[in-house]
Amino acid sequence: MSDVDVNKIEGLVRVENVPKEDMQELCMEMTHSVYPHKKVYGDYCPIQAHVNCPPELAFRYLAKTEALLEWTYSLRDMIYVPEKELFEFTDAIGGTTKCYAKTVAHSGPMTVDYHCAWDQPDHLWMIYLMRVVPAELVFNKSGCVITWINCRHPFYDENPSPELAPEGRKVWVGDGWPFFYAGHTVELENLKRILEYRNAHNEWEV
Amino acid sequence: MSDVDVNKIEGLVRVENVPKEDMQELCMEMTHSVYPHKKVYGDYCPIQAHVNCPPELAFRYLAKTEALLEWTYSLRDMIYVPEKELFEFTDAIGGTTKCYAKTVAHSGPMTVDYHCAWDQPDHLWMIYLMRVVPAELVFNKSGCVITWINCRHPFYDENPSPELAPEGRKVWVGDGWPFFYAGHTVELENLKRILEYRNAHNEWEV
Repeated sequence: MSDVDVNKIEGLVRVENVPKEDMQELCMEMTHSVYPHKKVYGDYCPIQAHVNCPPELAFRYLAKTEALLEWTYSLRDMIYVPEKELFEFTDAIGGTTKCYAKTVAHSGPMTVDYHCAWDQPDHLWMIYLMRVVPAELVFNKSGCVITWINCRHPFYDENPSPELAPEGRKVWVGDGWPFFYAGHTVELENLKRILEYRNAHNEWEV
Repeated sequence: MSDVDVNKIEGLVRVENVPKEDMQELCMEMTHSVYPHKKVYGDYCPIQAHVNCPPELAFRYLAKTEALLEWTYSLRDMIYVPEKELFEFTDAIGGTTKCYAKTVAHSGPMTVDYHCAWDQPDHLWMIYLMRVVPAELVFNKSGCVITWINCRHPFYDENPSPELAPEGRKVWVGDGWPFFYAGHTVELENLKRILEYRNAHNEWEV
């Protein structure tokens, strides 16, 4: 890294060029009593919850695509599509709309990403980035934290393939973006309740 | 999963028991024009940025602990502590305060976690959870997205070992929690500038 002189890079805020008092002032200016919805949930939708369930069990549950049948509001009727190596659901939000999903999970850092799309399985652009973090590490208590982030892909704003929609469908998944904070919070609360119930009743058979 | 009847779990919001119109109403009720600082950044501090730099290069940069010398506001003078397998820095925010850091990176999902603490290397409770995501996947454009989440560990509110502080130190790292959104945003902007500079100048030698 020694080859780059960071002092040549414009606009960096480091203790060497911005004294502590100025940094405090800058931080105070950036901190507000309230933030507009668009500022917080405009391009990204990050939510989190503490769940009273061991992290490994929460991860194993999330990593199985069929868990979506339980904790999501409207993904149902899962069918495996072997030639595409992914799953097809019906998303009741869109009537008879098909939703395709592929789950990519990494057990080390306990990330679980659901790569999804409405109407077609070939470009999975709706990506639910989730992660399970041991609460012991970050909150000094038992259980886990689940983090969940979506990014506002441009297809949320405009369906690239309206011709693939079932006849007569008036909604598009991206119409809901302004309500993703609310909708995902409802679903994360579902997930929390299911994991805590399963953990309390030791119901993990899959 | 078939052994649990989800209908037995109280409080779930699913299309079978909450019709679409009621779900819409619920989401509208939960969505506000503004949100208080404490509601958004009270227990978690999630921030994100798009960076015009290939994801693999951003990940490799972040995964090297010495990168903290560049993009953080005040971590400097890195020394490797072999017997602890971690690094010691001086955190200028705390005067001569020592900050200990261990980096845990996973190249598959491109997570980079900095496990840190002030004053002692034995319980690394300040955890910076970062992740590099290909922007191609989530934004249909080049570059990457960097996500960063901190959780409000109880030690932020109360230093568990004040006797370890350098003599005369009046600040505690957790005093800054209400300004983490601002401070981390400044540092993420540093990181973005450094990565974009390195990428533009093809300066990746480490």
